[in-house]
Amino acid sequence: MTQKTTPRILSGFMELLPEDQLVFERMRKIIAETYESFGFVELDTPVLELSEILLAKAGGETEKQIYRFTKGDTDMCMRFDLTVPLSRYVAQHQNELSFPFRRYQIGKSYRGERPQRGRFREFYQADIDIIGSENLSILYDAEIPSIIYRVLTKLGLKRFHIRMNNRKLLQGFYEEIGLTEQSAEILRIIDKTDKIGEDNVRLCLLDLGLKADKIAKVLELAGLKGSIADVLAQLDSFGIQNALFKEGLSELKTVTDALNDMGVPESHLKIDLRITRGLDYYTGTVYETFADDFPKWGSICSGGRYDNLSGYYTDRKLPGVGMSIGLTRFFDVLKSQNLLNKGAKTPAAVLVIPMSANESRAALKVGTILRQEGIKTEVYGVDTKFKNKLSYANKIGVPYVVILGENEVAANTAVLKDMAKGEQQTVGQDKLAPTIRLMHKLEPILPVIKDC
Amino acid sequence: MTQKTTPRILSGFMELLPEDQLVFERMRKIIAETYESFGFVELDTPVLELSEILLAKAGGETEKQIYRFTKGDTDMCMRFDLTVPLSRYVAQHQNELSFPFRRYQIGKSYRGERPQRGRFREFYQADIDIIGSENLSILYDAEIPSIIYRVLTKLGLKRFHIRMNNRKLLQGFYEEIGLTEQSAEILRIIDKTDKIGEDNVRLCLLDLGLKADKIAKVLELAGLKGSIADVLAQLDSFGIQNALFKEGLSELKTVTDALNDMGVPESHLKIDLRITRGLDYYTGTVYETFADDFPKWGSICSGGRYDNLSGYYTDRKLPGVGMSIGLTRFFDVLKSQNLLNKGAKTPAAVLVIPMSANESRAALKVGTILRQEGIKTEVYGVDTKFKNKLSYANKIGVPYVVILGENEVAANTAVLKDMAKGEQQTVGQDKLAPTIRLMHKLEPILPVIKDC
Repeated sequence: MTQKTTPRILSGFMELLPEDQLVFERMRKIIAETYESFGFVELDTPVLELSEILLAKAGGETEKQIYRFTKGDTDMCMRFDLTVPLSRYVAQHQNELSFPFRRYQIGKSYRGERPQRGRFREFYQADIDIIGSENLSILYDAEIPSIIYRVLTKLGLKRFHIRMNNRKLLQGFYEEIGLTEQSAEILRIIDKTDKIGEDNVRLCLLDLGLKADKIAKVLELAGLKGSIADVLAQLDSFGIQNALFKEGLSELKTVTDALNDMGVPESHLKIDLRITRGLDYYTGTVYETFADDFPKWGSICSGGRYDNLSGYYTDRKLPGVGMSIGLTRFFDVLKSQNLLNKGAKTPAAVLVIPMSANESRAALKVGTILRQEGIKTEVYGVDTKFKNKLSYANKIGVPYVVILGENEVAANTAVLKDMAKGEQQTVGQDKLAPTIRLMHKLEPILPVIKDC
Repeated sequence: MTQKTTPRILSGFMELLPEDQLVFERMRKIIAETYESFGFVELDTPVLELSEILLAKAGGETEKQIYRFTKGDTDMCMRFDLTVPLSRYVAQHQNELSFPFRRYQIGKSYRGERPQRGRFREFYQADIDIIGSENLSILYDAEIPSIIYRVLTKLGLKRFHIRMNNRKLLQGFYEEIGLTEQSAEILRIIDKTDKIGEDNVRLCLLDLGLKADKIAKVLELAGLKGSIADVLAQLDSFGIQNALFKEGLSELKTVTDALNDMGVPESHLKIDLRITRGLDYYTGTVYETFADDFPKWGSICSGGRYDNLSGYYTDRKLPGVGMSIGLTRFFDVLKSQNLLNKGAKTPAAVLVIPMSANESRAALKVGTILRQEGIKTEVYGVDTKFKNKLSYANKIGVPYVVILGENEVAANTAVLKDMAKGEQQTVGQDKLAPTIRLMHKLEPILPVIKDC
């Protein structure tokens, strides 16, 4: 035989073994099903796009990281997020879509970043966006955090907070105190408070040329604390007449009221006036989400309201609101902290084992019947010692084994073994499906995430 | 505003509007669920691989079509199928996997082919493979066509045939008549019969230097027709003692017997001694699948048995059997022939419409309750005329609309409208979920494929 090539993957790419892959899939499915329960339709855009399209907006760091190449005369890129393709899709198909257009996409994006712990060059994002034509009701801004709440709760995360803010409110406040021109820069600085600390924020604001009394006011606003009602009351008490401030405050009230109507408990919500999302892209409501016990994870999902999705491709104004879960990164964090509830290495509920080759055909028949009854079933086909057959069942972690020997086949019965309990019973073949269904139904369904 | 970039995608790439995307997703889900019902575990390998790995085997046409590029010092490719990555994965993780290893993968692959009708540069394949260590029972060869049968039946395809053959049987036959050396070439020629016709096959065999009497024998074997039992009896009647022929014949018998045990009706099976799959990669059982009414589609899914999955990466012998559905191409064929049963443009079963902004908060509450009852629900948030609200419901094709006006909110009721029937009734809000569940349950579930 020729020299072998050592099998390996590119560095910075995630690849999972079956046990982890099945947990990842459960996670992906829970997210997709929750998005669909709110009526979002799945989109699937190409991974490759024309460079001219994908780079209409990009620049700086992002552009350097892009996988870009030519084939023939065509200059193309692998997508680096799901937002630019959405922006292109909605502009391209605007006359065929109904607005508000609600789409979700769970797909891979690519960035050739310097490999480091927790950073991947191929990564899943799970995005939802609601796009309006010309305008979009503020009520949709409340829908997004209610979806975040449902998704994380269904994944099994218990202690987390969705932090919300409104950029109009901040901008209006800066206008009010005469800082209109510095507004965008202040928003970027304030957003870094968690990373660099309040002292450094103060220095940055000084650097920007702000006077001490203005800095005090900026920090006073950023530092407001308390329940949602408390913070709203404090904001009201400022008595600010600036129109933008008032609009932002009114939006924040509407969003928090609507979240209450949608059954999101206040224990998971917070107004945090330091969350600004930095980017100029966002124009109103903004969100970030943190696990209470793991502040170092950073935001699990983030998003916000934007005025214009597709300005690079169309004159039509397409405002929207959305958010994104960095799925690969979130999974990696949970895995590395041993917070995943792992299960079997197979989706099958049953492994049918013939004692010898003589019972193989009977095993195929029983497997077919179980599948027709909706039970995921694998039939073991290797002719080996019984010990090896059971050892395979243990390795793949299948919950039930059905054993067929000469006597069982003659009597149309089977031995049904509960692998977790180690108990077994002889059951008529016609009673196998209902018996297994009942036993399987009684098993508790593990959440993806362990208690936290 | 600046000059706009015309939004468009690369040629040869498929992108769908919501209505088609939802059908595609139903198709993908049915395939995935059927694979899982047989206990296959989903894998998800990177789209990018090291060129050294991916091209260990490739050559000729395939290599020219590959999207290959360098970033930094790294020479990488986008995968062109799911088989080479599987081969690399199993070799790389062989000590962490349990054999037989059963995996499925539904993912995109990339080939920069010349764009033409029905050929895509980005395309989904839906693969299953069962990999043994050192050896793998012939019974697994029967499992594959039983899965093909279930998948296509669940998709709604009625009239199709899985055609089977065994390369050992053919090779043994050629050995028996003294054509051992020409065997591989004859297999390639015979495989083209459907494309080039029997007269051209005869010419090719003449070109190969075969004498007329040998050609007659080769064509006699290739032309055997009849029921499975008939063909097997004819093969038996040849009385050939060649060991490879006998092994192939015995395997074909075992596979067809087992398919019977697995409840696959003979109306969907055929022994076709002209199916050889061309490639040397296959070593035993081979399959192709054709729609009875659409022979021009070519094979919908194909596969077979191979002796050695990962010879380029490991000395360990890893025999396997598998098949692949060309999902993007199949979907495109069904779409272009108007054979898809299209449904709504939303996954939601219900759209909740508040008559005016006054009922918005009540609408959010009702939407939340319906979702908690497991009903996919969108709440309409745009403040516009009622006519426009209903028009949106019609456009997205949602089956039920729940309308909340001032009176309904006061009385804790809602107007429930069945959009297909145009009928409406007033229902207590606490009765909405059970009423909708019952109505929705009675709707027939459309198969993906129209009657054919």
